[in-house]
Amino acid sequence: MRFIIQRDRLVHSVQEVMKAVTSRTTIPILTGIKITVTSEGVTLTGSDSDISIQSFIPAEVDGDEIVEVKNSGGIVLNARFFSEIVKKLPMDTVEIEVENNFQTIIRSGKAEFNLNGLDPEEYPHLPIIEEENIFKLPTDLLKTLIRQTGFAVSTSETRPILTGVNLKVQDDELTCIATDSHRLAMRTAKIENKINGTYSVVIPGKSLSELSKILDDTNELIEIVITENQVLFKAENLLFFSRLLEGNYPDTSRLIPSDSKTDVTVHTKDFLQAIDRASLLAREGRNNVVKLTTLEGRIIEVSSNTPEIGKVIEEVQAEAIEGEDLKISFSAKFVMDALKALEGTDIKINFTGAMRPFVIRPLHDDSMLQLILPVRTY
Amino acid sequence: MRFIIQRDRLVHSVQEVMKAVTSRTTIPILTGIKITVTSEGVTLTGSDSDISIQSFIPAEVDGDEIVEVKNSGGIVLNARFFSEIVKKLPMDTVEIEVENNFQTIIRSGKAEFNLNGLDPEEYPHLPIIEEENIFKLPTDLLKTLIRQTGFAVSTSETRPILTGVNLKVQDDELTCIATDSHRLAMRTAKIENKINGTYSVVIPGKSLSELSKILDDTNELIEIVITENQVLFKAENLLFFSRLLEGNYPDTSRLIPSDSKTDVTVHTKDFLQAIDRASLLAREGRNNVVKLTTLEGRIIEVSSNTPEIGKVIEEVQAEAIEGEDLKISFSAKFVMDALKALEGTDIKINFTGAMRPFVIRPLHDDSMLQLILPVRTY
Repeated sequence: MRFIIQRDRLVHSVQEVMKAVTSRTTIPILTGIKITVTSEGVTLTGSDSDISIQSFIPAEVDGDEIVEVKNSGGIVLNARFFSEIVKKLPMDTVEIEVENNFQTIIRSGKAEFNLNGLDPEEYPHLPIIEEENIFKLPTDLLKTLIRQTGFAVSTSETRPILTGVNLKVQDDELTCIATDSHRLAMRTAKIENKINGTYSVVIPGKSLSELSKILDDTNELIEIVITENQVLFKAENLLFFSRLLEGNYPDTSRLIPSDSKTDVTVHTKDFLQAIDRASLLAREGRNNVVKLTTLEGRIIEVSSNTPEIGKVIEEVQAEAIEGEDLKISFSAKFVMDALKALEGTDIKINFTGAMRPFVIRPLHDDSMLQLILPVRTY
Repeated sequence: MRFIIQRDRLVHSVQEVMKAVTSRTTIPILTGIKITVTSEGVTLTGSDSDISIQSFIPAEVDGDEIVEVKNSGGIVLNARFFSEIVKKLPMDTVEIEVENNFQTIIRSGKAEFNLNGLDPEEYPHLPIIEEENIFKLPTDLLKTLIRQTGFAVSTSETRPILTGVNLKVQDDELTCIATDSHRLAMRTAKIENKINGTYSVVIPGKSLSELSKILDDTNELIEIVITENQVLFKAENLLFFSRLLEGNYPDTSRLIPSDSKTDVTVHTKDFLQAIDRASLLAREGRNNVVKLTTLEGRIIEVSSNTPEIGKVIEEVQAEAIEGEDLKISFSAKFVMDALKALEGTDIKINFTGAMRPFVIRPLHDDSMLQLILPVRTY
C-alpha cells in the first residue's frame, strides 16, 4: 500500500472516524483506524463496536487529484497517534507507505514517521445492511430532530431502553421521542419518500449525538436504513452505523394530556431568562426547583427560595393566561432544556393542575412538544 | 447602603476580584466579596489571604454617572452567587440596597433578589503598605515578563521557594528568574524610574498568573510596591496584593555557563514544530525525551523512538552550526515551553556538551534566556 494524499482531506476524515474510536475498548485492534486504498480512493474506518464510522476520500473530485494511489492495500494504525501526527505534519501533502510486517511510513516534507501497524484482516467487518427500508430527509432537519429530542434521554442504566431515542416511521412521517420518565421530548417531520409498513426502533442517544457532531449543516438528503439490530446513516462519502437498543419502547402517547386547565402564552426568551435567574438561588435546594404562580393582569410570577442563601422573585408579562389560577413547582433545568430545544419566539404551555404533567409547544406549531412532570411542593 | 450602578461596570469589577476568591478557604467570610460604597464610588474586595484584589468603580467618569450613590455603607455577599446573579440580570442598571440584618436586595427590571449578607466589619483588613519602594513599568511589559518566566516555576512543594518568581531590582533594572531545578527562565527589563538600594523578593507563581489575567494589554504604567512580606501592584482603579515567599532564593547566576562548545542558530518556528512532531512519539516513553544530532551541511536531526509505537526522524535546516559535533537528549516539553516564551524569529542555542545545561536566547537580544538541563541517554 502506498499513496500520496492532500493533508487537509486526510485530517478531516480522520477526525470523522475518530468519533467512533475509544481507548476504553476490550478489543485492542479497535484502538486503531483502518485505512483501505483502492484506485477509487482511500477509506478510513473507526469503530467501538456500538458505533462504526466509515469515511471515503475519493481519488479525484471535479478533476482535482486528491489522492495519488501508487499501490492499493490496507493497514490499521493506532488512532490516537495517527490523528495527532497527521494534524501536525509540515506540508500540504502526505505520503503513506506500508512496508514489511505492517511497518508504516508517514512522510511529509522532511519529517518521517515510522508507525507499527496491525493486520487489516484482523479488523472486524462492518455490518452488512440490506438496503430495503430506506428513507430520506434533509441532513439539517435530522440534526434538528436530534437536538430537539436527544437531550431528554435517560442517563441511568436502570431502564436501558430509555437511554435511546425512539424513532418511528409511518407512511411519510418520522417521529422522534425521548424520555427519562421525568420529561419527554417529541418531534415529528415529513420524510422525502413514502415507505411501506411501519418501523419503530430505538437508537442509543450517544450514537445520535456523535452523528450530529460530524454531519454538516446542509439540506442535502441523508439516507437512513433500518434493519433488525442496526441503523445506517448514509451521507456523501460517509457511512455511520449504530447498533439498536433491544426491547420495547414504552407507549408514550397516553402520557400526553389531551385536556388542560390553565393555558399560558408567553415570550420564550423572557420566560427562559426569568427561570434561569430564579434557578440561581435554587441550585443548592431541592433539585433546582422553581415556583410559578399565575397572577392578575396576565402576570406569571417565577420565584425560588433557599433560606440559607436568599430568595428571588420576578414577574413575567404573559401574552395570555386562560383558565384556572395555578401554583406549580418544577425543575428549572428541565424547563430550560425544553425551552432551548423549541423553535419560535412564543410558546404555549398547557397545565392540567399542579400535580399533572404540563406540555410546552411553539405557539403555532404542533410538530414538536416538550412534556415535563412537576415537582410536588404545594 | 443603597446605590444604582451600570451593570457592565459592576460585572467587570466582580470578575476581577473573583480571581482572588476561592471556595476552598477555612475563613468563611472570604467566600464573599466585600462591597464598600462612599460618595466617591464603589469598592469591591476579594481575597484568599494569599492574594487580595481591590477594584474601584468611580461614581463618575468623564462626566458620565456610573454609580448613583443613595446611601454609603458596606456589605459582604457570597461571591459565587453574587457574581452569577449580576451576570444574568435583565437590565443595564442594578440597584443594590442593604436592609436590616445585612439582608441585601438586588433589583434589575422586574427581577428582585434577596441575599443573606455578612457584616463587612468582620472582613479581614488588607495589608497596610508604606509606599516607599515604588518602581514603575509599562503594564504590557510586566505581562510579558510574567509570561516569559512564570511557566518555569516549580509545581512541587518540596522546595517551596522555587514555586515563586524571583524579582530583583537594582538601579533602573528589573530581573525576573524562575527555575524548577530542571530548567530556568530569566528576563531583564528597564524600569521607568531609578530606585535606591537593591531589592530581591520571591512572588508566588500563582499570584503572578492571576495578576496577568486581569491586567489589560496597555502600555500605561503599573506601580509595584515592595515591603518585607507583601508586594502591591497598582493599576488604574485596581490594587493587587500578594504575600511574598519566605526564604532565600538560590543564587542562579553560577548555573549559566559562560563558555560553549557547540553553537546553533536556527529559525524558531521550524525548530519548535520539528520538536513538537518528534514529541508525539516520545510521550509514552522516557519523560517525553527527544534527541538532537548535528549533521553535515548545517543540519539538525531531531528524532524520537518508542519501540512499541514507532519512531520519528526529521531534519531541520539550521542557519549556522559552529563548534563540536553534538548528540544530546532533552525534554521536548521544556524546550517547547522555552521556545514559545522567547521573542524573535531566530534563536541561538549554546551547548556545552551532552551532559551540561544549554542556553537558548533570541538571536540579537541578551535581555532574556532559557536554560535547560539535558537528559542523559547517550
